[in-house]
Amino acid sequence: MPSVSNKGKNMPESPIRKLVPYAEKAYKANKTVYHLNIGQPDIKSPEIAMEAVANHNLEILAYTRSEGSQEYREKIANYYKNNNIPVEANNIIVTTGGSEALLFAMGSIADAGDEIIIPEPFYANYNGFATASDVKIVPVISKIENNFALPPISEFEKLITPRTKAILICNPGNPTGYLYSKEEIQTLAKIVKKHDLFLVADEVYREFTYDGYNHYSILEEESLAENGIIIDSVSKRYSMCGARIGYLVSKNKQVIATALKFAQARLSPPTFAQIASEAALQTPQSYFDEVIVEYQDRRNTLVNALKAIPGVQVGEPKGAFYCIVQLPIKNSDAFAQWLLEEFDDKGETIMVAPAAGFYSSPGVGLNQIRIAYVLKKESLVRAVEILKIALQKYKD
Amino acid sequence: MPSVSNKGKNMPESPIRKLVPYAEKAYKANKTVYHLNIGQPDIKSPEIAMEAVANHNLEILAYTRSEGSQEYREKIANYYKNNNIPVEANNIIVTTGGSEALLFAMGSIADAGDEIIIPEPFYANYNGFATASDVKIVPVISKIENNFALPPISEFEKLITPRTKAILICNPGNPTGYLYSKEEIQTLAKIVKKHDLFLVADEVYREFTYDGYNHYSILEEESLAENGIIIDSVSKRYSMCGARIGYLVSKNKQVIATALKFAQARLSPPTFAQIASEAALQTPQSYFDEVIVEYQDRRNTLVNALKAIPGVQVGEPKGAFYCIVQLPIKNSDAFAQWLLEEFDDKGETIMVAPAAGFYSSPGVGLNQIRIAYVLKKESLVRAVEILKIALQKYKD
Repeated sequence: MPSVSNKGKNMPESPIRKLVPYAEKAYKANKTVYHLNIGQPDIKSPEIAMEAVANHNLEILAYTRSEGSQEYREKIANYYKNNNIPVEANNIIVTTGGSEALLFAMGSIADAGDEIIIPEPFYANYNGFATASDVKIVPVISKIENNFALPPISEFEKLITPRTKAILICNPGNPTGYLYSKEEIQTLAKIVKKHDLFLVADEVYREFTYDGYNHYSILEEESLAENGIIIDSVSKRYSMCGARIGYLVSKNKQVIATALKFAQARLSPPTFAQIASEAALQTPQSYFDEVIVEYQDRRNTLVNALKAIPGVQVGEPKGAFYCIVQLPIKNSDAFAQWLLEEFDDKGETIMVAPAAGFYSSPGVGLNQIRIAYVLKKESLVRAVEILKIALQKYKD
Repeated sequence: MPSVSNKGKNMPESPIRKLVPYAEKAYKANKTVYHLNIGQPDIKSPEIAMEAVANHNLEILAYTRSEGSQEYREKIANYYKNNNIPVEANNIIVTTGGSEALLFAMGSIADAGDEIIIPEPFYANYNGFATASDVKIVPVISKIENNFALPPISEFEKLITPRTKAILICNPGNPTGYLYSKEEIQTLAKIVKKHDLFLVADEVYREFTYDGYNHYSILEEESLAENGIIIDSVSKRYSMCGARIGYLVSKNKQVIATALKFAQARLSPPTFAQIASEAALQTPQSYFDEVIVEYQDRRNTLVNALKAIPGVQVGEPKGAFYCIVQLPIKNSDAFAQWLLEEFDDKGETIMVAPAAGFYSSPGVGLNQIRIAYVLKKESLVRAVEILKIALQKYKD
């Protein structure tokens, strides 16, 4: 019998997905499960987008251009300009989700065995794309004590080798909720310019910033014109995770020409999803204003409730809709499994994402979980109450 | 300035896309261009599929399961059973087009530097996926004189090395239109069993067979249960190229478990496209019957007209909707460009795909083109007339 590849054997399992069998057990036991584990928002998608698809009048569902239509990309460029990001249609490639944008970026800038430095904890699927691309992730640790701020330059410079091709950040951060300041972006700009690296920024949560803070994009920084690559997605912005539309954005012509070859090989991004996403660009500002008030409110509720639990430490998220929570336990994998399999409070329990999967350094983050605040406030209050009771009962 | 990867530099440009600038010149010169170059059918998508999307009542466009919903995959399994292919839902992963299924297959079975043997000429984008995956394509030549039949076993065995992981076929073939016989599939089964290889079969044109011939799938062959991987797609079957839905199908549990990890990293296939594709499974047989009569009619018209041109040799396609045409010229790249840039007959010209891009052996197929018969009969007749006139005028 032929055997699968080593790459395939090494592909990490998602830290969330591996809990699914235990969640299924919990459902079978008729438990109510509060899902704090996944970034699937409960916010409605913009009506304008959903109606555009309902009103489609296509007779042939044909390929589109590999990079997305000229008209759509011009509208996307306008969106960026409205966000102080000076790019044109020809700086943009429409991809099948931010996932594909990241895969194209890795393939365009790194060969097998090349290295990309990523502050950890980071979005767990970066591990999967790196494994698929034979790229080595070199983690630089950021700490809950510093609220996951950018590690000092010296920590990056220690890790740079001749195989280093890029630094990758997620801003605002999944799973940390950390929002990099303008000064931190400029610090990163200095490092990548000095060492001739790319700076890849996953900015899919751009709109979700709180407490009056604003997002500062890597392409607002003029000096990054040749080094910067933005990974973007409509998934969270418009609560359209199932569309599978993202963008790769760069002012570096060689990067765009290269990513376009990857895009052409897979023919085109999905047509219906492009109809929805193009229409979504007309979503009124009021939609975002409401969503952001809602998320900020949820964050406040969640963080305050978590802080009130003895022994629990939590980051202060300024963006996105996640936070890393440090618990007074030894192993959050076992704890998360126990919550689903063994525990309930009045028939209710919670599903959380163990944080170890968001680190690539072994043994780090074992006492942390990621919580996504994608549930209504009342549910979050109850979920934290359940966590508190669970922590009292749990022995590891 | 940081530089792109070697992989990125080596990514091949599609043999079709590189003609696009010349096509744009032709449009600017107000020429009518008959597109024989691309497999975008002019056939209408099934109404039932297009209406299912128009009638969607989603409020949140959410992620689906990474492998597609249980219900959808059960329906797909029924489709296969109706085609004598005995598979269950858990043998199927829904992908973003056949393209992604191929990428997952390559990643699941081959590491960087591993080899896959492919009879050439082959679908040009195999080159792109192989480059993206650092997999080496080892071509085994099939010949127009033999109508692109399976090369003898000895030709395969000469090429098998310790790095060989799989043989990849496209059946019926793009670009050849060749339909492998049951005996040829059994021959391939013997080779892969003997050498412990995978047999990957791109069967996206399964329904399109002519002259009473039937498609014989690799998974109809029981002995291939552990070795066979089917790449499939709704693109051509339902004329829904823009959906971007495909399937990876295998009875090898390790392959499915591995491909699932690739699928989970990219979260899910597009939701609207799955709605369309699930509905498309109810397309009545009459739809296919009509489409196949139409394609067979077009093929007869095209092949007969081509054979009537002096010096032109053409394969006898038994499936799909392509054929390879050998022309009395030296370089079809230059000829295809000349057709768009310099030539017209009464303001009309044709766009063809130079065949060299469908070979990976250098210097082979230079006097061949691929023609896709995705236009109405009258257009095909006129297009071949234009080709005939062009060949009389062209000097290379």
